[in-house]
Amino acid sequence: MIFKRIKSAGIAHNSYFIGSGTDAAVIDPRRDCQVYVDIAREHGLRVRYILETHRNEDYTIGSIELNHLTGARVHHGPGLDWKYGETLRDGQEITIGNLRLTAILTPGHTDESLSYILTDLSTGEHPVMVFTGDALFVGETGRTDLYGPEEATRLASTLYNSIFKKLLPLGDGVIICPAHGGGSVCGKRIAARDESTIGIEKEQNPALRLTKREEFVRYKLSERLERPHYFRRMEKYNLEGPPRLGRLPDPTPLTPAEFLKEIDRGAIIVDTSGEAAFAGIHVKGSYSIWLEGLPAFAGWVLPYDHPILLVLEDPSHLDPAVRSLIRAGYDDITGYLRGGIERWYNAGLPLESLPLLSVHQLKNMLDRGERLLLLDVRDQDEWEAGHITGAMHIYVGHLEQRLAEVPRDIPLAAYCGSGRRSGLAASILLRAGYAKVYNVAGSITAWKAAGFPLTRD
Amino acid sequence: MIFKRIKSAGIAHNSYFIGSGTDAAVIDPRRDCQVYVDIAREHGLRVRYILETHRNEDYTIGSIELNHLTGARVHHGPGLDWKYGETLRDGQEITIGNLRLTAILTPGHTDESLSYILTDLSTGEHPVMVFTGDALFVGETGRTDLYGPEEATRLASTLYNSIFKKLLPLGDGVIICPAHGGGSVCGKRIAARDESTIGIEKEQNPALRLTKREEFVRYKLSERLERPHYFRRMEKYNLEGPPRLGRLPDPTPLTPAEFLKEIDRGAIIVDTSGEAAFAGIHVKGSYSIWLEGLPAFAGWVLPYDHPILLVLEDPSHLDPAVRSLIRAGYDDITGYLRGGIERWYNAGLPLESLPLLSVHQLKNMLDRGERLLLLDVRDQDEWEAGHITGAMHIYVGHLEQRLAEVPRDIPLAAYCGSGRRSGLAASILLRAGYAKVYNVAGSITAWKAAGFPLTRD
Amino acid sequence: MIFKRIKSAGIAHNSYFIGSGTDAAVIDPRRDCQVYVDIAREHGLRVRYILETHRNEDYTIGSIELNHLTGARVHHGPGLDWKYGETLRDGQEITIGNLRLTAILTPGHTDESLSYILTDLSTGEHPVMVFTGDALFVGETGRTDLYGPEEATRLASTLYNSIFKKLLPLGDGVIICPAHGGGSVCGKRIAARDESTIGIEKEQNPALRLTKREEFVRYKLSERLERPHYFRRMEKYNLEGPPRLGRLPDPTPLTPAEFLKEIDRGAIIVDTSGEAAFAGIHVKGSYSIWLEGLPAFAGWVLPYDHPILLVLEDPSHLDPAVRSLIRAGYDDITGYLRGGIERWYNAGLPLESLPLLSVHQLKNMLDRGERLLLLDVRDQDEWEAGHITGAMHIYVGHLEQRLAEVPRDIPLAAYCGSGRRSGLAASILLRAGYAKVYNVAGSITAWKAAGFPLTRD
Amino acid sequence: MIFKRIKSAGIAHNSYFIGSGTDAAVIDPRRDCQVYVDIAREHGLRVRYILETHRNEDYTIGSIELNHLTGARVHHGPGLDWKYGETLRDGQEITIGNLRLTAILTPGHTDESLSYILTDLSTGEHPVMVFTGDALFVGETGRTDLYGPEEATRLASTLYNSIFKKLLPLGDGVIICPAHGGGSVCGKRIAARDESTIGIEKEQNPALRLTKREEFVRYKLSERLERPHYFRRMEKYNLEGPPRLGRLPDPTPLTPAEFLKEIDRGAIIVDTSGEAAFAGIHVKGSYSIWLEGLPAFAGWVLPYDHPILLVLEDPSHLDPAVRSLIRAGYDDITGYLRGGIERWYNAGLPLESLPLLSVHQLKNMLDRGERLLLLDVRDQDEWEAGHITGAMHIYVGHLEQRLAEVPRDIPLAAYCGSGRRSGLAASILLRAGYAKVYNVAGSITAWKAAGFPLTRD
Repeated sequence: MIFKRIKSAGIAHNSYFIGSGTDAAVIDPRRDCQVYVDIAREHGLRVRYILETHRNEDYTIGSIELNHLTGARVHHGPGLDWKYGETLRDGQEITIGNLRLTAILTPGHTDESLSYILTDLSTGEHPVMVFTGDALFVGETGRTDLYGPEEATRLASTLYNSIFKKLLPLGDGVIICPAHGGGSVCGKRIAARDESTIGIEKEQNPALRLTKREEFVRYKLSERLERPHYFRRMEKYNLEGPPRLGRLPDPTPLTPAEFLKEIDRGAIIVDTSGEAAFAGIHVKGSYSIWLEGLPAFAGWVLPYDHPILLVLEDPSHLDPAVRSLIRAGYDDITGYLRGGIERWYNAGLPLESLPLLSVHQLKNMLDRGERLLLLDVRDQDEWEAGHITGAMHIYVGHLEQRLAEVPRDIPLAAYCGSGRRSGLAASILLRAGYAKVYNVAGSITAWKAAGFPLTRD
Repeated sequence: MIFKRIKSAGIAHNSYFIGSGTDAAVIDPRRDCQVYVDIAREHGLRVRYILETHRNEDYTIGSIELNHLTGARVHHGPGLDWKYGETLRDGQEITIGNLRLTAILTPGHTDESLSYILTDLSTGEHPVMVFTGDALFVGETGRTDLYGPEEATRLASTLYNSIFKKLLPLGDGVIICPAHGGGSVCGKRIAARDESTIGIEKEQNPALRLTKREEFVRYKLSERLERPHYFRRMEKYNLEGPPRLGRLPDPTPLTPAEFLKEIDRGAIIVDTSGEAAFAGIHVKGSYSIWLEGLPAFAGWVLPYDHPILLVLEDPSHLDPAVRSLIRAGYDDITGYLRGGIERWYNAGLPLESLPLLSVHQLKNMLDRGERLLLLDVRDQDEWEAGHITGAMHIYVGHLEQRLAEVPRDIPLAAYCGSGRRSGLAASILLRAGYAKVYNVAGSITAWKAAGFPLTRD
Repeated sequence: MIFKRIKSAGIAHNSYFIGSGTDAAVIDPRRDCQVYVDIAREHGLRVRYILETHRNEDYTIGSIELNHLTGARVHHGPGLDWKYGETLRDGQEITIGNLRLTAILTPGHTDESLSYILTDLSTGEHPVMVFTGDALFVGETGRTDLYGPEEATRLASTLYNSIFKKLLPLGDGVIICPAHGGGSVCGKRIAARDESTIGIEKEQNPALRLTKREEFVRYKLSERLERPHYFRRMEKYNLEGPPRLGRLPDPTPLTPAEFLKEIDRGAIIVDTSGEAAFAGIHVKGSYSIWLEGLPAFAGWVLPYDHPILLVLEDPSHLDPAVRSLIRAGYDDITGYLRGGIERWYNAGLPLESLPLLSVHQLKNMLDRGERLLLLDVRDQDEWEAGHITGAMHIYVGHLEQRLAEVPRDIPLAAYCGSGRRSGLAASILLRAGYAKVYNVAGSITAWKAAGFPLTRD
Repeated sequence: MIFKRIKSAGIAHNSYFIGSGTDAAVIDPRRDCQVYVDIAREHGLRVRYILETHRNEDYTIGSIELNHLTGARVHHGPGLDWKYGETLRDGQEITIGNLRLTAILTPGHTDESLSYILTDLSTGEHPVMVFTGDALFVGETGRTDLYGPEEATRLASTLYNSIFKKLLPLGDGVIICPAHGGGSVCGKRIAARDESTIGIEKEQNPALRLTKREEFVRYKLSERLERPHYFRRMEKYNLEGPPRLGRLPDPTPLTPAEFLKEIDRGAIIVDTSGEAAFAGIHVKGSYSIWLEGLPAFAGWVLPYDHPILLVLEDPSHLDPAVRSLIRAGYDDITGYLRGGIERWYNAGLPLESLPLLSVHQLKNMLDRGERLLLLDVRDQDEWEAGHITGAMHIYVGHLEQRLAEVPRDIPLAAYCGSGRRSGLAASILLRAGYAKVYNVAGSITAWKAAGFPLTRD
């Protein structure tokens, strides 16, 4: 048995390649799917099945792309008006060499959610693994808020059934293979470890200790997760089938003059540098989204109807940046600034800085009573767990829509957990013409490390 | 948590890299151990601990090598007169970032055998994994015959304790990480799958269903496993610490004339080509050990006090051939025939063929009553499960010592399961001056596929 | 200036990547052209121009493929009815950053042949390099026989002009960059070295010492080069534009049973193993074309209207085999035998061997007067330079068409220079039902090395 | 013939690998010399000779290192008291397969300088290439100032002989292979192109047009080249043989706390980030040396008797940073800040910024008459070619020794050609406790692009 977990950083997405004999299946493939073809080639296998656990909302599924490359059949769960692939019914079996994959309905995160039980017939009939999609994660359960508050109770109760009546009874020894790892927005506290079993989860997963339905539902309803703007686009894509890429976009290296021309034509600039470099100097008008943040945060701020221009800290970042964008459905990536920001300032073109404040500087300013509005751009739970006294709170993903609430006549210092999301927030403010904006380096992490106090409302 | 299983082909050896925070541990490193340094580098980790499960007998442990590269501390089990490293006691704990590794004594395969329980403190106190060394494999248990028949009962009973009293009680959900996968000589029927748990093994592992001590011991005593000659050398090496390599041997590319000179000086020729190529033509006097068979079969036939010369089917095979040899303690690899066998015959030098018989040809010869002695070189269990009528049986590993039993005045056709071990056997016969030797292509596999009958004594 | 020579093995084809500033040009791209895109990506360059030196006949030009990937403009020489690209006139200039490329007409090999002079304007106006296509090679000049004997004198005289009036006057210091290196069929004695200049060629190139037109023409007319059957297909392809590949064919791994089914449907088997392995055992009915020989010899024997099946000695040979075939226009590669010949004979399927004779064995047979017909399959010049007494001569490329001349009632031993082409020849004989066929290992090379005599007619 | 040019970035060093038959030679190997072993392995060659052109002063020669890996013999020129290797005499020949390498004395850059003429005996006796070391570059000649002003005339006259009497007479068609390409400090205006010939140089190399000895000597004496502090160390190393590395240093990933501890022990911090990131935020007390500048500028400022700590913009920069440092003889690289600057500020540790000024901001400040001292840190020729009015001039390499000349009571803005060297200069000022320091982004390049005026004294 060939078993590979393919991780896509940023959205912490897991897909899986399973092979036996001459055949293989891929579970929840990503859109840049040459990786599965390469594994198949390495082992002399044919990808025969593409198995989706559910209509994903946080990335563009690669099923159609992979089907074009391999001819494999695409399968997903029942009840949606899919424009491609074939629907599986509860209990339906698929055979890959010595392996049997059994689809079971495990709704709750979404109504059509499937899990796949893997049995290795060469060793017996006992289940070995279960691919749980977004139903059960390591240390967490799938979010049940995506259909809106009016459906949340029903979904939570449904998920309770799926987990307690269908997944846990598979047996403690069964290895779980979820669609996401730590860092995903599809679950609040997914563990950083990938390896787990039903037995371990029963012991350690906080939600699985709530064995009574009402407790479980109450717990799920109390969860607060952000829902990025681009989820709607992904849901539509994954229902109808996203456009075929063929191959990855190959953005053009642009001179500063050409880059300027594209800006004039309406292209949006994304600077994927780290906070330090963006702070030092950047092209005026850029969004600051650090490279690893691109998969999760592009979808909050970037429109789908404008071409994208990239400013990269290192040329090697082009490939991951492109992959991150197309996974979120941004296929129109016009070009990147050849030679990076250095070429831009060598050409004497318009620049901007974003001063970083150390937490010591910030503390001094606050202690001295300097005029400064603190903007906390973390999510609701983080805010409530403790913030700097006097700060205003708007989640980074909502900032652009709520700029009317942010005063323009006072210097602003944005902070988050580490300085990354606040870098994006600060870049939104700069784009909107705010004159004096700071980013707090290290933000709450550094603030706490320095021993400074937090407040709760 | 960073978790990597590093597989070494041929001996089906598993080592493991575990990282968390800034630190890492390696369990049972192999001797060509740059791979661990590379993983550590990739993740910005320091290898702090090298943890051995037992004094291995089938390969040279890489602990000293890895210690030189990283400064990590070497640990192993108690009761042996180790010349390096530090001994752990039962229950001793080691911390790697958020992870706790607890050594537990699990003797039976050997007396000093340890397992290591991994707990991920970031998610709780429940064990997540256990590194079982050669105590418990997927689908199999460790062999208990290595101290000789007089100790076998004691070891089997000890192993019973280790498995049933110490490992299984860890809980069904615990993932097992053994030191070997399918294909190893350290267990008879290790499964081809790497992923398993205590729970799955309890259901599916044949030996684990023998829950009564006497049954279990009887079962273990009935096992018959071959014990290659080189095991003794490995045991000594791993107790005293093998010589440091520094870097992998870099065998010299040799012209046919230089190759000849080295043969004259006593070097042993190993041809790692597949059966077809060795059959077609080879350097007279070569051992035929196919590339993937090198780790397991070199130790049966190659002496440690002669330099080794390689004939390779493809230049890319040099690296895996060298790694296989040094893992078995063969460090004196003088050179390889540059340009392969073609250069040899272009130079008009002494050649030899090893005619392959198809099973159809063989059947015809037997049916016609042609003079031919069949030599079955498989192991005892395979032989007893069914062989071709009239064959003589000598296991390939013992052939060189038992040549006196093999008549010289009759054509010989060697067979095994597939034609590989019989290729080695045939090459041993040719080296010994047997005049007319065949290898049966596909051997018993093909014989059965053709529908021909087998016999049992 | 970025300068890269991209060599395609087997046909010894050179293409060139030239970059400066933000732009790049590719000269004579091959069809598997991702390599140029990768170089451009690495250096942040845009491929702006694709420059052909002439309508190639020995491989499929990659211009249309590369145009699709990059949008670069395709240019070639005047006078042909091209179905794609734009024609350049003598003296036309193209600018790439600091570089100037000047097209000059250098007919003779073909009528539309262009060379491109490269000047590095950052250092001066003196030519630095000239891309000579098939006009001038290192140690050789382009063949002038491709339009048939009636045109050969005209072409030779035209080539004389191109070389002596246009290329040599560029100056001794100019570096030459031809379209082929040693081993190509486009020139008889191209040197094994890639680096040369006009000055070195004037001193050392045998043809360039024939400074009188008549001598030069006489010399060219005396050349005898083989012209593979597939040249016509390539000429048509390169005039009209070959079909777009999009991506490389991904042949299916086939089980023996599936492989058999494809054979029954008319697929042609190509075994790319070395001579030794093919000799040992092979699938009945295979053509034997060693991996490195595929680009040059596939086109002699493989039809374009049958799918191709591959038997590979090593799985890593799949990629080079596929590239070799599509470069020669063979795009319909159905699959390959998964696991190689071993799976075939393990399945008990029809096998065949091709006994190799050492030259010593051959000499003994001849000396003893055994019944044996020697078949020399080398080219005319090789044959005339000396062959084994009593041999029959048919060039390997013509053998299939001239089988009527080869007697069927006598054992045959094929030989060539090394045993490779004779392996192909022997496989043709086996396919045609010849009963007793040998291949002479090392052939004339080994024969000479053994000190045995040759004869001339 | 195998010919490879191995370029080492930053010092623009060229080494060469030459192979033929079974043997190879390496000319002027660098210290991280696994690259040559890998090429040899790829082609099945043995490195037999290591040929030095001269005692280099700008990097540590890798001869001893490569000798340990391969056993190859080391050769260099006569007249120095070498502690390793063997001396060659003028005209001495070395044979590598079909190739002949002839050493010829070409002093001038240094007294013991050798060139090596390559002849390809398979094509004739005419020289094909010449490895010119630091005697003749593409577009430039070797510097003759290294023995001090009193020897400069003699060396220039000697170099005239070497070039005009020994190298040029080899013939226009001979390809030149110098030890440096564009960007080296061993010549002022070495061209960006690597490919050239004697003929091209005669036409285009400015110094080679000065065919009269006096003119040539006058021209050489007028050259002004900086001589980094570390040259002396390299000269000693290369005469005596540098310490063996064995393998590349493997710096430890350090937490901020561990990093701090090493600083306290006296380690020197080198931040290899780009200007933007260093400007944004950095560890207080760091030298700013951008990654590509490390090979050339480390030797100006870093002491040899302190361990080095690295701050990297991207983890992938560790390998090139380490290589750059060991090439300059800095072997004591203690560690690097794991996770980069972000970990530092997350820990709330002391930070510093280096504000960048755009040229527009600078112009405004100057126009408004703000208090500001401009510091031009370019070399003498750049300064004289035009600078910003009112600037003070100290070459970056001398700044640390000349700090007494730089006033402390006025804001300072450093500039160079692009903002990189001025970034280093600014970091030197910050380390020295200067309170208000700016770096001018884009510096003179941007200043000119913006159309602002320069002055000459």
